[in-house]
Amino acid sequence: MSDQVSPLAPDSFPEMPVVAGVRTASVAAGIKYKNRNDVLLVELAEGTTVAGVLTRSTTPGAPVAWCREILPKGSGRGLVVNSGNANVFTGAAGAAAVRETASAAAALLSCSPDEIYVASTGVIGEILAHEKITAKLPDAVGALSASDWDGAANAIRTTDTFAKGASATAEIGGKTVTIAGIAKGSGMVQPNMATMLSFVFTDAAIPAGLLQALLPPLADRTFNSITVDSDTSTSDTLLLFATGKAGNAPPSGIEDAALDGFKQALESVLRELAILVVRDGEGATKFIEVRVSGAESDASARKIALAIANSPLVKTAIAGEDANWGRVVMAVGKSEQPIDVSKIRIGFGGIDIAVGGMRDPNYDEAPVAAHLKGQEIGIDVDVGIGSGRSTVWTCDLTHGYISINADYRS
Amino acid sequence: MSDQVSPLAPDSFPEMPVVAGVRTASVAAGIKYKNRNDVLLVELAEGTTVAGVLTRSTTPGAPVAWCREILPKGSGRGLVVNSGNANVFTGAAGAAAVRETASAAAALLSCSPDEIYVASTGVIGEILAHEKITAKLPDAVGALSASDWDGAANAIRTTDTFAKGASATAEIGGKTVTIAGIAKGSGMVQPNMATMLSFVFTDAAIPAGLLQALLPPLADRTFNSITVDSDTSTSDTLLLFATGKAGNAPPSGIEDAALDGFKQALESVLRELAILVVRDGEGATKFIEVRVSGAESDASARKIALAIANSPLVKTAIAGEDANWGRVVMAVGKSEQPIDVSKIRIGFGGIDIAVGGMRDPNYDEAPVAAHLKGQEIGIDVDVGIGSGRSTVWTCDLTHGYISINADYRS
Repeated sequence: MSDQVSPLAPDSFPEMPVVAGVRTASVAAGIKYKNRNDVLLVELAEGTTVAGVLTRSTTPGAPVAWCREILPKGSGRGLVVNSGNANVFTGAAGAAAVRETASAAAALLSCSPDEIYVASTGVIGEILAHEKITAKLPDAVGALSASDWDGAANAIRTTDTFAKGASATAEIGGKTVTIAGIAKGSGMVQPNMATMLSFVFTDAAIPAGLLQALLPPLADRTFNSITVDSDTSTSDTLLLFATGKAGNAPPSGIEDAALDGFKQALESVLRELAILVVRDGEGATKFIEVRVSGAESDASARKIALAIANSPLVKTAIAGEDANWGRVVMAVGKSEQPIDVSKIRIGFGGIDIAVGGMRDPNYDEAPVAAHLKGQEIGIDVDVGIGSGRSTVWTCDLTHGYISINADYRS
Repeated sequence: MSDQVSPLAPDSFPEMPVVAGVRTASVAAGIKYKNRNDVLLVELAEGTTVAGVLTRSTTPGAPVAWCREILPKGSGRGLVVNSGNANVFTGAAGAAAVRETASAAAALLSCSPDEIYVASTGVIGEILAHEKITAKLPDAVGALSASDWDGAANAIRTTDTFAKGASATAEIGGKTVTIAGIAKGSGMVQPNMATMLSFVFTDAAIPAGLLQALLPPLADRTFNSITVDSDTSTSDTLLLFATGKAGNAPPSGIEDAALDGFKQALESVLRELAILVVRDGEGATKFIEVRVSGAESDASARKIALAIANSPLVKTAIAGEDANWGRVVMAVGKSEQPIDVSKIRIGFGGIDIAVGGMRDPNYDEAPVAAHLKGQEIGIDVDVGIGSGRSTVWTCDLTHGYISINADYRS
């Protein structure tokens, strides 16, 4: 947790609604950080369904393996999250730490251990002292409250400089349903199936199978479309809990029109949380939206957009407020996606720079330079062969990133 | 060209031998840089054969397209290289600039334009003032000399902080043959079929077809196994010229045992040049060799090694002399290659840190910390499932990289 808040942070944590059937509590277990809460407990009402999207890393943390194991059951009664230790690459001891934590929480919440979700982030490779967590769980149960989202979002921070939350409402069959989510993440962010950690709660009644069908495509367009540094976390976890307390009639299937508003609202919450992660990118001073169009497919457009968004040379040029659009050309080229060079169009801030495979003869750098002085940078690229499109969000690469990461663990 | 020489640079430019049939000259054309030579002309004896490996970028420069077009002819009489402007994304004007340059050089060297190789590096997207080059070619022809490798290597530099050369000798059928090469590159370096620019010359007599068969696998193990910043240049070009002046009997084919010594010597020159590019990586303070073993195949091992070598979090940890081996775990995981987590072994500087999927219980950080204080860092990873192996070379990621790239073009 840095003392200096990202210049791209929102002014304050948002007002967030109560979600019926969800209560949270944060406690200080002293896992790594001193003088702050580092464990979040969430209690979920009986009947809560769950969906999840987990990291595709082949060296996932023990909590990720646990969530993957219990997700098919689709039932959630509790969630325990700690910051400061990722419980990754910790062998049998790591798996035992998760089981012990789940069992302790299950006993306190009167449910089965396979209804307790667990997530951890922080240092990799150190044994997690789970007894520090379980010792504090009774205190946490005593402190459960329905409205402390700010506290919940703070407890899960590591290098994050601000707490991240977002919410929305929608209607399902005439009933208002509420969605509220929190996230953490700042570095090691190129989620591959989810962000580092994000937990989203709704009081909608949606069967687990349907919830699980609904989540991945929305994750692809939101959390899987951000990158800070191209590094994929071992702990990426996105969990969506639906308590059913809103009392709506359960939708009949993924295509049920009654779900349309809910899908939109959920996507907006996920997008808002994903963008907040980018806005807290380690060392970030500029927020960058890369919009690629004219590609062979949406998937191809996303590869091109990520090649641009991950290019250290593009990101340092933006940091330096340098209209070095040639580096965008380079990044498009290194993506090895189908393009028509002679039709490539590139713009910064909505201003055309290149058209038809070379610099626009009328190109005037002044307005582009002015755009680059701002905090919100737009890069548009059309590759001229199809209708595939994708938007990806990232931040610039600055001295701040180096400072944070050259001595994070020490 | 920076004033400050990389701390990883060799003490001086090496002694380099004359290669019979090769003469070079450097001139100052004022393309971008002032008060330095920025154009290299190489004259090659009649009968010189050529092989090349060019960038896989889909936005290649006009010179790359030209080289690709003339390579099948396999005959080289001249090479013109300029620094300061890459002649990339310059449309029809860029292609014309290459043709004009080749024609002017061909007239002066009494050969056909399709025997003149052209390469450019520098800024992308600006029209190359080829008339500045062609105006200086007569001077260059008058200044041709057989021994100025240092001058040649200097003329092709852009952000390089030192000139790069390497040489070797071998025997083919009892005749001694000589190999000498130069290279440039410092940033935008994750070559994908070659480095930014490297030109290698030999007096061996080797038919063009055989030369072209021989080069790509050696390029894969050398130039294609380095990375500075994961960004692939639009101009990557590796050319190998063989003048035949050594008078050896031409080998019968790629498997001819008479070529064994030559292949080894050539690979050593390519490896030495590739490593010099890494040692001049923008902002580099540490040279890193990543050795991956136990993978499903050599290709899989290379993907894992590149995931480690390209990870900003691994590279900043090394910059900070932080034994944060957990970031190596993360990078292995993000490569999505087949591994057995429970058998992963990780070491820094030859010292085991992790064995059997978790930290070695006897791990002592002190000797690893001492190793990280040095300039030459070794990272060993065994992923425990096969016999595939790969070595990749990279450098750390520092404030220097940010400083250089946040204001390179401006």
